[in-house]
Amino acid sequence: MKNLIPVLLVLSCYAMNAAIQTKVVEYKQGETTLEGFVVYDDASKGTRPGVLIVHQWMGLTDYEKKRAEMLAQLGFVDFCSDIFCKCIRPHTREEAATQAVKYRNDRQLLRARVNAGLEALRQQPLVDPTRIAAIGYCFGGTTVLELARSGAKLNGVVSFHGGLDSPTPGDGKNIKCKVLILHGADDPTMSPQQIAAFVDEMRSGGVDWQMVKFGGAVHGFTQWYAGNDNSKGVAYNERADQRSWEYMKLFFAEIFK
Amino acid sequence: MKNLIPVLLVLSCYAMNAAIQTKVVEYKQGETTLEGFVVYDDASKGTRPGVLIVHQWMGLTDYEKKRAEMLAQLGFVDFCSDIFCKCIRPHTREEAATQAVKYRNDRQLLRARVNAGLEALRQQPLVDPTRIAAIGYCFGGTTVLELARSGAKLNGVVSFHGGLDSPTPGDGKNIKCKVLILHGADDPTMSPQQIAAFVDEMRSGGVDWQMVKFGGAVHGFTQWYAGNDNSKGVAYNERADQRSWEYMKLFFAEIFK
Repeated sequence: MKNLIPVLLVLSCYAMNAAIQTKVVEYKQGETTLEGFVVYDDASKGTRPGVLIVHQWMGLTDYEKKRAEMLAQLGFVDFCSDIFCKCIRPHTREEAATQAVKYRNDRQLLRARVNAGLEALRQQPLVDPTRIAAIGYCFGGTTVLELARSGAKLNGVVSFHGGLDSPTPGDGKNIKCKVLILHGADDPTMSPQQIAAFVDEMRSGGVDWQMVKFGGAVHGFTQWYAGNDNSKGVAYNERADQRSWEYMKLFFAEIFK
Repeated sequence: MKNLIPVLLVLSCYAMNAAIQTKVVEYKQGETTLEGFVVYDDASKGTRPGVLIVHQWMGLTDYEKKRAEMLAQLGFVDFCSDIFCKCIRPHTREEAATQAVKYRNDRQLLRARVNAGLEALRQQPLVDPTRIAAIGYCFGGTTVLELARSGAKLNGVVSFHGGLDSPTPGDGKNIKCKVLILHGADDPTMSPQQIAAFVDEMRSGGVDWQMVKFGGAVHGFTQWYAGNDNSKGVAYNERADQRSWEYMKLFFAEIFK
Protein backbone atom coordinates (compact mmCIF):
# COMPACT_ATOMS: atom_id res chain seq x y z
CA MET A 1 0.00 0.00 0.00
CA LYS A 2 2.85 2.32 0.96
CA ASN A 3 4.50 1.86 -2.45
CA LEU A 4 1.25 2.48 -4.22
CA ILE A 5 0.87 6.04 -2.91
CA PRO A 6 3.57 7.67 -5.11
CA VAL A 7 2.14 5.87 -8.13
CA LEU A 8 -1.36 7.07 -7.34
CA LEU A 9 -0.05 10.57 -6.81
CA VAL A 10 1.66 10.55 -10.21
CA LEU A 11 -1.48 9.20 -11.88
CA SER A 12 -3.63 11.75 -10.11
CA CYS A 13 -1.32 14.63 -11.19
CA TYR A 14 -1.43 13.27 -14.74
CA ALA A 15 -5.22 13.16 -14.63
CA MET A 16 -5.33 16.74 -13.33
CA ASN A 17 -3.11 18.00 -16.14
CA ALA A 18 -4.89 15.92 -18.73
CA ALA A 19 -8.16 17.63 -17.77
CA ILE A 20 -6.94 21.02 -19.03
CA GLN A 21 -7.92 21.40 -22.66
CA THR A 22 -6.68 24.06 -25.08
CA LYS A 23 -7.90 25.13 -28.48
CA VAL A 24 -6.85 27.76 -31.00
CA VAL A 25 -9.83 29.80 -32.23
CA GLU A 26 -9.89 32.09 -35.25
CA TYR A 27 -12.39 34.91 -35.23
CA LYS A 28 -12.95 38.19 -37.04
CA GLN A 29 -13.34 41.87 -36.31
CA GLY A 30 -14.34 43.56 -39.55
CA GLU A 31 -11.92 42.24 -42.17
CA THR A 32 -9.20 41.39 -39.66
CA THR A 33 -8.57 37.80 -38.68
CA LEU A 34 -7.71 37.38 -35.01
CA GLU A 35 -6.39 34.26 -33.32
CA GLY A 36 -7.41 33.50 -29.75
CA PHE A 37 -6.75 30.63 -27.42
CA VAL A 38 -9.34 28.83 -25.31
CA VAL A 39 -8.45 26.96 -22.11
CA TYR A 40 -10.81 24.95 -19.92
CA ASP A 41 -10.94 21.96 -17.64
CA ASP A 42 -13.00 19.11 -19.03
CA ALA A 43 -13.13 17.27 -15.70
CA SER A 44 -16.51 18.92 -15.21
CA LYS A 45 -19.12 19.09 -17.95
CA GLY A 46 -21.52 21.90 -17.05
CA THR A 47 -21.44 25.50 -18.20
CA ARG A 48 -19.40 27.87 -16.07
CA PRO A 49 -18.28 31.52 -15.94
CA GLY A 50 -16.06 32.72 -18.75
CA VAL A 51 -13.01 34.93 -18.38
CA LEU A 52 -11.66 37.01 -21.24
CA ILE A 53 -7.91 37.60 -20.94
CA VAL A 54 -6.35 40.49 -22.82
CA HIS A 55 -2.65 40.43 -23.57
CA GLN A 56 0.12 42.91 -22.89
CA TRP A 57 1.79 45.01 -25.60
CA MET A 58 3.84 42.01 -26.82
CA GLY A 59 0.60 40.41 -28.05
CA LEU A 60 -0.75 37.00 -27.12
CA THR A 61 2.13 35.05 -25.54
CA ASP A 62 2.72 32.07 -23.28
CA TYR A 63 2.24 34.44 -20.33
CA GLU A 64 -1.47 34.90 -21.01
CA LYS A 65 -1.82 31.19 -21.80
CA LYS A 66 -0.33 30.31 -18.42
CA ARG A 67 -2.73 32.69 -16.67
CA ALA A 68 -5.58 31.06 -18.59
CA GLU A 69 -4.46 27.63 -17.38
CA MET A 70 -4.36 28.91 -13.79
CA LEU A 71 -7.89 30.22 -14.20
CA ALA A 72 -9.09 27.00 -15.82
CA GLN A 73 -7.89 25.14 -12.75
CA LEU A 74 -10.16 27.42 -10.73
CA GLY A 75 -13.11 26.32 -12.84
CA PHE A 76 -13.44 29.01 -15.51
CA VAL A 77 -13.48 28.83 -19.30
CA ASP A 78 -10.83 31.26 -20.44
CA PHE A 79 -10.37 32.97 -23.75
CA CYS A 80 -7.05 34.64 -24.50
CA SER A 81 -8.13 37.24 -27.00
CA ASP A 82 -6.04 38.81 -29.74
CA ILE A 83 -6.23 42.55 -30.23
CA PHE A 84 -3.60 43.04 -32.97
CA CYS A 85 -4.18 40.41 -35.68
CA LYS A 86 -3.35 36.75 -36.32
CA CYS A 87 -0.43 38.00 -38.42
CA ILE A 88 0.99 40.42 -35.80
CA ARG A 89 3.00 39.04 -32.91
CA PRO A 90 5.58 41.71 -31.96
CA HIS A 91 9.12 40.42 -31.51
CA THR A 92 10.74 43.59 -30.19
CA ARG A 93 9.80 46.38 -27.81
CA GLU A 94 9.72 48.75 -30.77
CA GLU A 95 7.21 46.60 -32.64
CA ALA A 96 5.14 46.29 -29.46
CA ALA A 97 5.23 50.04 -28.88
CA THR A 98 4.02 50.68 -32.43
CA GLN A 99 0.98 48.51 -31.79
CA ALA A 100 0.31 49.91 -28.33
CA VAL A 101 0.43 53.51 -29.61
CA LYS A 102 -1.85 52.63 -32.51
CA TYR A 103 -4.60 51.40 -30.19
CA ARG A 104 -3.95 54.02 -27.58
CA ASN A 105 -4.74 56.59 -30.24
CA ASP A 106 -7.71 54.71 -31.67
CA ARG A 107 -9.83 53.65 -28.72
CA GLN A 108 -12.81 52.91 -30.97
CA LEU A 109 -10.80 50.28 -32.85
CA LEU A 110 -9.51 48.93 -29.52
CA ARG A 111 -13.09 48.63 -28.27
CA ALA A 112 -14.18 46.88 -31.46
CA ARG A 113 -11.34 44.37 -31.20
CA VAL A 114 -11.92 43.52 -27.55
CA ASN A 115 -15.67 43.26 -28.05
CA ALA A 116 -15.02 40.75 -30.85
CA GLY A 117 -13.04 38.68 -28.32
CA LEU A 118 -15.87 38.96 -25.82
CA GLU A 119 -18.31 37.66 -28.42
CA ALA A 120 -15.97 34.76 -29.29
CA LEU A 121 -15.78 33.85 -25.60
CA ARG A 122 -19.55 33.96 -25.27
CA GLN A 123 -19.88 31.49 -28.13
CA GLN A 124 -17.80 28.83 -26.41
CA PRO A 125 -20.21 26.00 -25.60
CA LEU A 126 -19.14 25.61 -21.96
CA VAL A 127 -19.52 29.31 -21.15
CA ASP A 128 -22.48 30.60 -19.18
CA PRO A 129 -23.06 33.81 -21.20
CA THR A 130 -24.62 35.56 -18.20
CA ARG A 131 -21.44 35.19 -16.13
CA ILE A 132 -18.48 36.85 -17.84
CA ALA A 133 -15.46 38.80 -16.63
CA ALA A 134 -12.49 40.29 -18.44
CA ILE A 135 -8.98 40.70 -17.07
CA GLY A 136 -5.93 42.28 -18.60
CA TYR A 137 -2.33 43.02 -17.83
CA CYS A 138 -0.65 46.33 -18.74
CA PHE A 139 -1.98 47.13 -22.28
CA GLY A 140 -4.62 44.48 -21.55
CA GLY A 141 -5.66 46.37 -18.40
CA THR A 142 -6.17 49.50 -20.48
CA THR A 143 -8.15 47.39 -22.91
CA VAL A 144 -10.57 45.80 -20.44
CA LEU A 145 -11.34 49.29 -19.14
CA GLU A 146 -12.13 50.35 -22.70
CA LEU A 147 -14.34 47.27 -22.95
CA ALA A 148 -16.22 48.49 -19.87
CA ARG A 149 -16.37 52.05 -21.25
CA SER A 150 -17.88 50.69 -24.48
CA GLY A 151 -20.91 49.66 -22.41
CA ALA A 152 -20.30 45.94 -22.90
CA LYS A 153 -22.55 43.66 -20.91
CA LEU A 154 -20.40 41.62 -18.54
CA ASN A 155 -20.13 41.19 -14.79
CA GLY A 156 -16.77 42.73 -14.10
CA VAL A 157 -13.34 43.76 -15.34
CA VAL A 158 -9.98 43.55 -13.59
CA SER A 159 -6.96 45.60 -14.59
CA PHE A 160 -3.50 44.48 -13.46
CA HIS A 161 -1.04 47.40 -13.76
CA GLY A 162 -3.06 48.75 -16.67
CA GLY A 163 -3.32 52.27 -18.04
CA LEU A 164 -6.21 54.17 -16.46
CA ASP A 165 -6.31 57.33 -18.55
CA SER A 166 -9.07 58.02 -21.02
CA PRO A 167 -9.36 60.63 -23.81
CA THR A 168 -13.15 60.53 -23.31
CA PRO A 169 -13.73 60.39 -19.55
CA GLY A 170 -17.45 61.01 -20.10
CA ASP A 171 -17.64 57.40 -21.27
CA GLY A 172 -17.31 56.30 -17.65
CA LYS A 173 -21.09 56.70 -17.47
CA ASN A 174 -21.46 53.81 -19.98
CA ILE A 175 -19.86 51.34 -17.58
CA LYS A 176 -22.37 48.72 -16.47
CA CYS A 177 -20.03 46.24 -14.81
CA LYS A 178 -17.98 46.23 -11.62
CA VAL A 179 -14.40 47.43 -11.87
CA LEU A 180 -11.35 46.29 -9.90
CA ILE A 181 -8.04 48.10 -10.39
CA LEU A 182 -4.86 46.41 -9.11
CA HIS A 183 -2.06 48.93 -9.22
CA GLY A 184 1.55 49.23 -8.09
CA ALA A 185 1.86 52.21 -5.75
CA ASP A 186 5.24 53.01 -7.35
CA ASP A 187 4.15 52.43 -10.95
CA PRO A 188 5.80 55.27 -12.91
CA THR A 189 3.54 54.84 -15.95
CA MET A 190 0.58 56.52 -14.26
CA SER A 191 0.94 59.99 -12.76
CA PRO A 192 -1.01 61.02 -9.65
CA GLN A 193 -2.95 63.35 -11.94
CA GLN A 194 -3.93 60.49 -14.24
CA ILE A 195 -5.04 58.40 -11.29
CA ALA A 196 -7.06 61.31 -9.91
CA ALA A 197 -8.68 61.78 -13.34
CA PHE A 198 -9.62 58.09 -13.37
CA VAL A 199 -11.19 58.38 -9.93
CA ASP A 200 -13.16 61.41 -11.15
CA GLU A 201 -14.32 59.45 -14.19
CA MET A 202 -15.53 56.56 -12.03
CA ARG A 203 -17.17 58.91 -9.54
CA SER A 204 -18.94 60.95 -12.22
CA GLY A 205 -20.05 57.79 -13.98
CA GLY A 206 -21.50 56.28 -10.80
CA VAL A 207 -19.39 53.18 -11.36
CA ASP A 208 -19.02 50.39 -8.80
CA TRP A 209 -15.23 50.45 -8.59
CA GLN A 210 -12.37 49.54 -6.25
CA MET A 211 -8.66 50.19 -6.48
CA VAL A 212 -5.92 48.37 -4.61
CA LYS A 213 -2.51 49.98 -4.38
CA PHE A 214 0.39 47.68 -3.59
CA GLY A 215 3.24 49.31 -1.68
CA GLY A 216 6.69 48.68 -3.14
CA ALA A 217 5.32 47.53 -6.49
CA VAL A 218 6.17 49.16 -9.82
CA HIS A 219 4.79 48.54 -13.30
CA GLY A 220 4.49 44.92 -14.43
CA PHE A 221 4.45 43.49 -10.90
CA THR A 222 2.80 40.25 -12.08
CA GLN A 223 5.39 39.53 -14.81
CA TRP A 224 7.43 36.57 -13.59
CA TYR A 225 10.13 37.32 -16.17
CA ALA A 226 10.56 41.04 -15.41
CA GLY A 227 13.41 40.78 -12.88
CA ASN A 228 13.30 42.48 -9.51
CA ASP A 229 15.01 45.82 -10.08
CA ASN A 230 12.37 48.41 -9.18
CA SER A 231 14.63 51.20 -10.41
CA LYS A 232 13.84 50.11 -13.97
CA GLY A 233 10.20 51.01 -13.39
CA VAL A 234 9.09 47.50 -14.42
CA ALA A 235 9.76 44.58 -12.10
CA TYR A 236 8.21 41.42 -10.77
CA ASN A 237 6.92 41.60 -7.19
CA GLU A 238 5.93 38.19 -5.88
CA ARG A 239 4.01 39.59 -2.93
CA ALA A 240 1.91 41.93 -5.07
CA ASP A 241 1.50 39.23 -7.71
CA GLN A 242 0.09 36.74 -5.23
CA ARG A 243 -2.06 39.25 -3.42
CA SER A 244 -3.50 40.66 -6.63
CA TRP A 245 -4.39 37.14 -7.76
CA GLU A 246 -6.21 36.53 -4.48
CA TYR A 247 -8.08 39.82 -4.82
CA MET A 248 -9.13 38.85 -8.33
CA LYS A 249 -10.44 35.53 -6.99
CA LEU A 250 -12.36 37.37 -4.29
CA PHE A 251 -13.84 39.69 -6.92
CA PHE A 252 -14.88 36.71 -9.05
CA ALA A 253 -16.46 35.04 -6.01
CA GLU A 254 -18.59 38.16 -5.59
CA ILE A 255 -19.59 38.80 -9.21
CA PHE A 256 -20.26 35.15 -10.04
CA LYS A 257 -22.11 34.15 -6.89
CA MET B 1 -37.00 12.97 9.97
CA LYS B 2 -38.32 16.00 8.11
CA ASN B 3 -39.69 17.53 11.33
CA LEU B 4 -36.45 16.92 13.11
CA ILE B 5 -34.40 19.16 10.82
CA PRO B 6 -35.68 22.54 12.14
CA VAL B 7 -35.17 21.30 15.71
CA LEU B 8 -31.62 20.21 14.94
CA LEU B 9 -30.94 23.53 13.24
CA VAL B 10 -32.15 25.42 16.30
CA LEU B 11 -30.06 23.25 18.59
CA SER B 12 -27.04 23.65 16.38
CA CYS B 13 -27.44 27.46 16.31
CA TYR B 14 -27.78 27.45 20.07
CA ALA B 15 -24.60 25.38 20.40
CA MET B 16 -22.79 27.79 18.09
CA ASN B 17 -23.85 30.79 20.12
CA ALA B 18 -23.16 29.08 23.40
CA ALA B 19 -19.56 28.52 22.33
CA ILE B 20 -18.86 32.27 22.21
CA GLN B 21 -17.47 33.38 25.55
CA THR B 22 -17.03 36.96 26.76
CA LYS B 23 -15.13 38.43 29.66
CA VAL B 24 -14.52 41.94 31.00
CA VAL B 25 -10.83 42.56 31.70
CA GLU B 26 -9.37 45.41 33.72
CA TYR B 27 -5.83 46.46 32.94
CA LYS B 28 -3.58 49.43 33.52
CA GLN B 29 -1.52 51.95 31.62
CA GLY B 30 0.48 53.96 34.13
CA GLU B 31 -2.03 55.01 36.78
CA THR B 32 -5.03 54.75 34.48
CA THR B 33 -7.42 51.83 34.78
CA LEU B 34 -8.72 50.61 31.44
CA GLU B 35 -11.55 48.18 30.85
CA GLY B 36 -11.37 45.82 27.89
CA PHE B 37 -13.55 43.02 26.65
CA VAL B 38 -12.39 39.58 25.56
CA VAL B 39 -14.36 37.39 23.15
CA TYR B 40 -13.49 33.87 22.04
CA ASP B 41 -15.04 30.61 20.97
CA ASP B 42 -14.50 27.82 23.47
CA ALA B 43 -15.60 25.12 21.04
CA SER B 44 -11.90 24.61 20.32
CA LYS B 45 -9.29 24.46 23.07
CA GLY B 46 -5.94 25.22 21.49
CA THR B 47 -4.14 28.56 21.27
CA ARG B 48 -4.97 30.69 18.26
CA PRO B 49 -4.20 34.10 16.74
CA GLY B 50 -5.28 37.12 18.72
CA VAL B 51 -6.89 40.25 17.32
CA LEU B 52 -6.79 43.57 19.12
CA ILE B 53 -9.78 45.77 18.28
CA VAL B 54 -9.55 49.49 18.87
CA HIS B 55 -12.72 51.50 19.22
CA GLN B 56 -13.98 54.61 17.47
CA TRP B 57 -14.15 58.04 19.08
CA MET B 58 -17.28 57.07 21.08
CA GLY B 59 -15.13 54.66 23.09
CA LEU B 60 -15.71 50.94 23.56
CA THR B 61 -19.31 50.21 22.50
CA ASP B 62 -21.47 47.32 21.37
CA TYR B 63 -20.20 47.96 17.85
CA GLU B 64 -16.68 46.74 18.67
CA LYS B 65 -18.10 43.89 20.74
CA LYS B 66 -20.16 42.72 17.76
CA ARG B 67 -17.07 42.85 15.53
CA ALA B 68 -15.20 40.82 18.16
CA GLU B 69 -17.95 38.22 18.12
CA MET B 70 -17.76 38.03 14.32
CA LEU B 71 -14.01 37.51 14.58
CA ALA B 72 -14.37 34.91 17.34
CA GLN B 73 -16.62 32.93 15.00
CA LEU B 74 -13.73 32.94 12.53
CA GLY B 75 -11.50 31.37 15.17
CA PHE B 76 -9.65 34.30 16.76
CA VAL B 77 -9.34 35.46 20.35
CA ASP B 78 -10.36 39.09 20.32
CA PHE B 79 -9.62 41.84 22.75
CA CYS B 80 -11.64 45.05 22.55
CA SER B 81 -9.20 47.50 24.07
CA ASP B 82 -9.99 50.73 25.87
CA ILE B 83 -7.95 53.81 25.03
CA PHE B 84 -9.73 56.45 27.15
CA CYS B 85 -10.25 55.02 30.66
CA LYS B 86 -12.68 52.72 32.46
CA CYS B 87 -14.40 55.86 33.70
CA ILE B 88 -14.73 57.57 30.28
CA ARG B 89 -17.44 56.44 27.88
CA PRO B 90 -18.46 59.48 25.82
CA HIS B 91 -22.20 60.03 25.50
CA THR B 92 -22.19 62.88 23.01
CA ARG B 93 -20.24 63.82 19.89
CA GLU B 94 -18.74 66.71 21.84
CA GLU B 95 -17.42 64.42 24.57
CA ALA B 96 -16.09 62.06 21.92
CA ALA B 97 -14.39 64.91 20.05
CA THR B 98 -12.69 66.07 23.24
CA GLN B 99 -11.17 62.63 23.70
CA ALA B 100 -10.22 62.22 20.05
CA VAL B 101 -8.47 65.59 19.96
CA LYS B 102 -6.63 64.80 23.20
CA TYR B 103 -5.07 61.66 21.73
CA ARG B 104 -4.61 63.16 18.30
CA ASN B 105 -2.41 65.79 19.97
CA ASP B 106 -0.61 63.32 22.23
CA ARG B 107 0.43 60.43 20.07
CA GLN B 108 2.87 59.16 22.69
CA LEU B 109 0.03 58.68 25.17
CA LEU B 110 -2.07 57.07 22.44
CA ARG B 111 0.77 54.65 21.72
CA ALA B 112 1.17 53.84 25.41
CA ARG B 113 -2.55 53.12 25.77
CA VAL B 114 -2.80 50.89 22.73
CA ASN B 115 0.39 49.03 23.66
CA ALA B 116 -1.13 48.31 27.07
CA GLY B 117 -4.09 46.71 25.26
CA LEU B 118 -1.74 44.69 23.10
CA GLU B 119 -0.02 43.37 26.20
CA ALA B 120 -3.37 42.51 27.81
CA LEU B 121 -4.33 40.57 24.69
CA ARG B 122 -1.02 38.70 24.69
CA GLN B 123 -1.67 37.58 28.25
CA GLN B 124 -4.93 35.86 27.39
CA PRO B 125 -4.29 32.14 27.86
CA LEU B 126 -5.75 31.06 24.50
CA VAL B 127 -3.70 33.56 22.49
CA ASP B 128 -0.68 32.45 20.49
CA PRO B 129 1.56 35.46 21.29
CA THR B 130 3.50 35.06 18.03
CA ARG B 131 0.35 35.57 15.94
CA ILE B 132 -1.25 38.92 16.65
CA ALA B 133 -3.06 41.54 14.56
CA ALA B 134 -4.74 44.81 15.42
CA ILE B 135 -7.72 46.36 13.68
CA GLY B 136 -9.45 49.64 14.25
CA TYR B 137 -12.29 51.72 12.94
CA CYS B 138 -12.05 55.49 12.47
CA PHE B 139 -10.18 56.74 15.59
CA GLY B 140 -9.23 53.09 16.10
CA GLY B 141 -7.70 52.98 12.61
CA THR B 142 -5.55 55.97 13.49
CA THR B 143 -4.62 54.17 16.69
CA VAL B 144 -3.53 50.86 15.17
CA LEU B 145 -1.30 52.82 12.81
CA GLU B 146 0.25 54.53 15.83
CA LEU B 147 0.70 51.08 17.36
CA ALA B 148 2.63 50.06 14.25
CA ARG B 149 4.64 53.31 14.29
CA SER B 150 5.58 52.63 17.91
CA GLY B 151 7.53 49.62 16.65
CA ALA B 152 5.22 47.11 18.35
CA LYS B 153 5.87 43.49 17.51
CA LEU B 154 2.80 42.09 15.82
CA ASN B 155 2.00 40.54 12.46
CA GLY B 156 -0.24 43.16 10.95
CA VAL B 157 -2.60 46.08 11.40
CA VAL B 158 -5.80 46.93 9.53
CA SER B 159 -7.32 50.40 9.45
CA PHE B 160 -10.99 50.78 8.48
CA HIS B 161 -11.66 54.42 7.49
CA GLY B 162 -8.97 55.54 9.91
CA GLY B 163 -6.91 58.71 9.96
CA LEU B 164 -3.63 58.28 8.10
CA ASP B 165 -1.81 61.49 8.95
CA SER B 166 1.16 61.58 11.27
CA PRO B 167 2.95 64.49 12.99
CA THR B 168 6.14 62.40 12.93
CA PRO B 169 6.24 60.69 9.52
CA GLY B 170 9.80 59.58 10.17
CA ASP B 171 8.32 56.99 12.55
CA GLY B 172 7.16 55.01 9.53
CA LYS B 173 10.61 53.42 9.58
CA ASN B 174 9.77 51.82 12.96
CA ILE B 175 6.96 49.78 11.45
CA LYS B 176 7.76 46.07 11.57
CA CYS B 177 4.36 44.62 10.68
CA LYS B 178 2.28 44.50 7.52
CA VAL B 179 -0.24 47.29 6.99
CA LEU B 180 -3.62 47.16 5.26
CA ILE B 181 -5.57 50.38 4.76
CA LEU B 182 -9.27 50.13 3.88
CA HIS B 183 -10.48 53.54 2.81
CA GLY B 184 -13.57 55.14 1.30
CA ALA B 185 -12.63 56.85 -1.95
CA ASP B 186 -15.00 59.70 -1.06
CA ASP B 187 -13.99 59.98 2.60
CA PRO B 188 -13.87 63.73 3.27
CA THR B 189 -11.82 63.36 6.46
CA MET B 190 -8.58 62.67 4.59
CA SER B 191 -7.37 65.10 1.92
CA PRO B 192 -5.47 63.87 -1.15
CA GLN B 193 -2.43 65.61 0.34
CA GLN B 194 -2.74 63.66 3.59
CA ILE B 195 -3.08 60.40 1.68
CA ALA B 196 -0.04 61.27 -0.43
CA ALA B 197 1.93 62.06 2.75
CA PHE B 198 0.95 58.68 4.18
CA VAL B 199 2.13 56.92 1.03
CA ASP B 200 5.42 58.83 1.28
CA GLU B 201 5.77 57.77 4.91
CA MET B 202 5.20 54.10 4.02
CA ARG B 203 7.54 54.32 1.04
CA SER B 204 10.32 56.02 3.00
CA GLY B 205 9.92 53.57 5.86
CA GLY B 206 10.15 50.55 3.56
CA VAL B 207 6.85 49.29 4.96
CA ASP B 208 4.93 46.34 3.52
CA TRP B 209 1.65 48.16 2.94
CA GLN B 210 -1.49 48.02 0.82
CA MET B 211 -4.40 50.38 0.44
CA VAL B 212 -7.85 49.56 -0.90
CA LYS B 213 -10.05 52.43 -2.02
CA PHE B 214 -13.76 51.74 -2.23
CA GLY B 215 -15.61 53.76 -4.84
CA GLY B 216 -18.77 55.46 -3.59
CA ALA B 217 -17.83 55.05 0.07
CA VAL B 218 -17.45 57.94 2.51
CA HIS B 219 -16.22 58.01 6.10
CA GLY B 220 -17.62 55.36 8.46
CA PHE B 221 -18.62 52.97 5.68
CA THR B 222 -18.65 49.99 8.08
CA GLN B 223 -20.98 51.63 10.62
CA TRP B 224 -24.31 49.83 10.34
CA TYR B 225 -26.03 52.63 12.22
CA ALA B 226 -24.68 55.55 10.17
CA GLY B 227 -27.51 55.86 7.65
CA ASN B 228 -26.93 55.98 3.91
CA ASP B 229 -26.72 59.68 3.09
CA ASN B 230 -23.26 60.14 1.58
CA SER B 231 -23.75 63.91 1.53
CA LYS B 232 -23.25 63.91 5.31
CA GLY B 233 -19.70 62.64 4.82
CA VAL B 234 -20.35 59.66 7.11
CA ALA B 235 -22.58 56.83 5.92
CA TYR B 236 -22.90 53.08 5.92
CA ASN B 237 -22.03 51.35 2.66
CA GLU B 238 -22.97 47.69 2.73
CA ARG B 239 -20.90 46.83 -0.32
CA ALA B 240 -17.74 48.43 1.05
CA ASP B 241 -18.44 47.00 4.49
CA GLN B 242 -18.67 43.43 3.20
CA ARG B 243 -15.75 43.80 0.82
CA SER B 244 -13.49 45.35 3.43
CA TRP B 245 -14.28 42.49 5.80
CA GLU B 246 -13.29 39.99 3.10
CA TYR B 247 -10.03 41.87 2.44
CA MET B 248 -9.29 41.72 6.16
CA LYS B 249 -9.90 37.97 6.21
CA LEU B 250 -7.54 37.48 3.27
CA PHE B 251 -4.94 39.62 5.05
CA PHE B 252 -5.29 37.47 8.18
CA ALA B 253 -4.99 34.30 6.10
CA GLU B 254 -1.68 35.62 4.80
CA ILE B 255 -0.16 36.93 8.03
CA PHE B 256 -1.27 33.96 10.18
CA LYS B 257 -0.44 31.16 7.78
